[in-house]
Amino acid sequence: MKMLHLSETREFDEKKFKRFLLHDSAYFRILNFNLAAGQLFPVHRHPADGQVSIHVVEGKGFFLGDADTEIPAATGDILVSDINEPHGVRADTDMRILVTIAPPF
Amino acid sequence: MKMLHLSETREFDEKKFKRFLLHDSAYFRILNFNLAAGQLFPVHRHPADGQVSIHVVEGKGFFLGDADTEIPAATGDILVSDINEPHGVRADTDMRILVTIAPPF
Repeated sequence: MKMLHLSETREFDEKKFKRFLLHDSAYFRILNFNLAAGQLFPVHRHPADGQVSIHVVEGKGFFLGDADTEIPAATGDILVSDINEPHGVRADTDMRILVTIAPPF
Repeated sequence: MKMLHLSETREFDEKKFKRFLLHDSAYFRILNFNLAAGQLFPVHRHPADGQVSIHVVEGKGFFLGDADTEIPAATGDILVSDINEPHGVRADTDMRILVTIAPPF
């Protein structure tokens, strides 16, 4: 058993979003990204099988996808995407997201 | 891409905790359990490889484990456990948890 505390990684940086690796195993990887208002987690994709969940735990913004896809994202919203499908996030307010990747690649 | 909204499953039942299957794929399964104050998600284990994360998204209580293990659990706390290791939850207040299981079994 292992405990993670999101209260311990509540840090923002006006220059670049913050990234915290919380857990990494053969089964899944869990990360916390904190975006200051206006920051972008650029749309990307990885040539790997698997899926990623992006869970907004604080703040609001948009989930980004292919082309001009923009989906409103508020606290309690979760995007599930294939890892090899374009995905990203843009923050309207300070915004914290929890990302779970299975399997890690 | 698929969107999940935790705001849509905020239901409690005084008789038994509520269970919502939000996502199920070859890679992970995501569930939301809502426990009313005082309710128990009994300690259990499954004879399978993999890990589970239990993320408190609202309220507080305890993560339960082997024997008398009780770990305080508040919003933003996440327990990571092997699937075949005993794990459970007891709610002090109305409590919502998001459970991610990888791989699904």
